[in-house]
Amino acid sequence: MPRFKLTIEYDGTGLAGWQRQTDRASVQSLLEDAAEKLAGARCEVVGAGRTDAGVHAAGQVAHVDIPKPLSPYNVMQGLNYHLEPLTSQVAVVKAEEAPDDFHARFSATGRGYRYRIVNRQARLALDLNRAWHIPEKLDAQRMHDAAQGLLGHHDFSSFRSSICQSKSPMKTLERLDVTQDGEDITIHARARSFLHHQVRNMAGSLRMIGNGKWPPHRLKELLEAKDRTQAGETAPPQGLCLTRVWY
Amino acid sequence: MPRFKLTIEYDGTGLAGWQRQTDRASVQSLLEDAAEKLAGARCEVVGAGRTDAGVHAAGQVAHVDIPKPLSPYNVMQGLNYHLEPLTSQVAVVKAEEAPDDFHARFSATGRGYRYRIVNRQARLALDLNRAWHIPEKLDAQRMHDAAQGLLGHHDFSSFRSSICQSKSPMKTLERLDVTQDGEDITIHARARSFLHHQVRNMAGSLRMIGNGKWPPHRLKELLEAKDRTQAGETAPPQGLCLTRVWY
Repeated sequence: MPRFKLTIEYDGTGLAGWQRQTDRASVQSLLEDAAEKLAGARCEVVGAGRTDAGVHAAGQVAHVDIPKPLSPYNVMQGLNYHLEPLTSQVAVVKAEEAPDDFHARFSATGRGYRYRIVNRQARLALDLNRAWHIPEKLDAQRMHDAAQGLLGHHDFSSFRSSICQSKSPMKTLERLDVTQDGEDITIHARARSFLHHQVRNMAGSLRMIGNGKWPPHRLKELLEAKDRTQAGETAPPQGLCLTRVWY
Repeated sequence: MPRFKLTIEYDGTGLAGWQRQTDRASVQSLLEDAAEKLAGARCEVVGAGRTDAGVHAAGQVAHVDIPKPLSPYNVMQGLNYHLEPLTSQVAVVKAEEAPDDFHARFSATGRGYRYRIVNRQARLALDLNRAWHIPEKLDAQRMHDAAQGLLGHHDFSSFRSSICQSKSPMKTLERLDVTQDGEDITIHARARSFLHHQVRNMAGSLRMIGNGKWPPHRLKELLEAKDRTQAGETAPPQGLCLTRVWY
């Protein structure tokens, strides 16, 4: 049965997140409903990253086996055609033939996330569901410098959600850059994989460095404390976007 | 009575546009409703650009006279406070004291618009209400080169809406750049003022240059024809954003 690698974009606002839920529409269930219409049979759609409710994706990757001879182009257009009556928030950007042993989640060698902050006094209109509004002045350079202390292979328990299902809290953070363009501050994070809420929890602590309430070295101390209760708040979901998955 | 210059951002999706309407919420009427709550009296809010339904703004400018002693900061926060129950789509980003003779519309010396195209086969999800989806391949460099032929002082009748209220079709186009970043193609337009639908009509004709259906010199011929029926379609409103007003 031909396997396809899908690149998927979604606006997560109001959706239950990636994973199938019994009570609310999720990105996975919407894609599986569309795939069923296209293929005439239920097909599992396996995603690289299980994004939470309200989180967006510009480059989520998934795989699906379609029991029907279709070209990649027809898989993309067919899924989009059948998605259209279900939602306007999810689109399949690309479909490619993939080897049988390609697994969107287990074959992935890296995941890239972007966390967007709008740093200004006025509330948000254009970016309301796309960014975290932080009114107090942030020092993005200070955030960036402190963030570098988290790079490498560590126990990230201090930035781990209590419901995280990962077997180990050990992760290797490859990139944590903070850039600024006027009132837009963006955190760029990359790792082979992340703990549940890790990026949002790091963003919450970076806010405290940026607004000066915490000294920069506090971030590294938090890492060593391995204690979630000492870290900052969990940044809200709408600022987060899964931008890319590497294989 | 103190006059304030307001910088305003809005997501125009579903709104009637800038100007007050009898039947639907417009940006102007929402701001006037908020100003009435803040000032205890009806105040006219005069905008620099009368954007159409569905068009966005990142830097619309307006002026308003508030018959109450308030600091600029309190005008901004007060308007946003009273806007909140009415809409999440409009925000006052900045308020500044302005001289009595400052007029948001007549004092303006330039207006900048951005028109966003997403050029790819797959339909849009993240940019659904923020860009024009064009599936056929566009050559952005060809669009940019042809666009330069429209610069300067001309009769823009070929790119003018039939309901345009401007006294003259003569306008001076100062900038019409087309840039590309992957699948994102952006048209940047600047002039002292524009005719009704001028930017959207130029975008519609630039599509025909970009997809190769028209030769590049056709754009300049259209300008000389002074005939709206020969030009391209009117590009849809959601791609357009008023980015800046100069004084």
